[in-house]
Amino acid sequence: MNSITLLGFAAAVLTTASFLPQAIKTIRTKDTSGISLFMYSLFAMGTLLWFLFGLFSNNMPVMIANAVTLIFAAIILVYKIKYK
Amino acid sequence: MNSITLLGFAAAVLTTASFLPQAIKTIRTKDTSGISLFMYSLFAMGTLLWFLFGLFSNNMPVMIANAVTLIFAAIILVYKIKYK
Repeated sequence: MNSITLLGFAAAVLTTASFLPQAIKTIRTKDTSGISLFMYSLFAMGTLLWFLFGLFSNNMPVMIANAVTLIFAAIILVYKIKYK
Repeated sequence: MNSITLLGFAAAVLTTASFLPQAIKTIRTKDTSGISLFMYSLFAMGTLLWFLFGLFSNNMPVMIANAVTLIFAAIILVYKIKYK
């Protein structure tokens, strides 16, 4: 793996993993007043399209990263709708 | 542009643009209690690495999308630190 690939891999891990602490915080506190419904609606739709893009272009890393991100984003979105 | 490229383009626009309504909401309300500091720290670092990945691999769309996302994420992060 060259250093540019490694950089991309680190970037993907960080942006994907970042939604986990937000999901945990939202589940624990149910405090969603400062969270934007519009952001999570657009973002969940976007990660779904990224997942489909990965699927149709046979790009497994894009599929996996976005499937994981979509799960976290969907949890936050559901909590935002339920506890707004 | 084929349909898979178009799908990726739509995905990139959605995930990038999604942070704008969150940034606007955070600037307007200064309500950051429900926002995860850990999320935005990891996410800002991740988008910076994505930007560098785009730079070193001569991938202009990745560079532009992540530069824009990084600006929005940095605004939210600064507000979270300032108004926690």
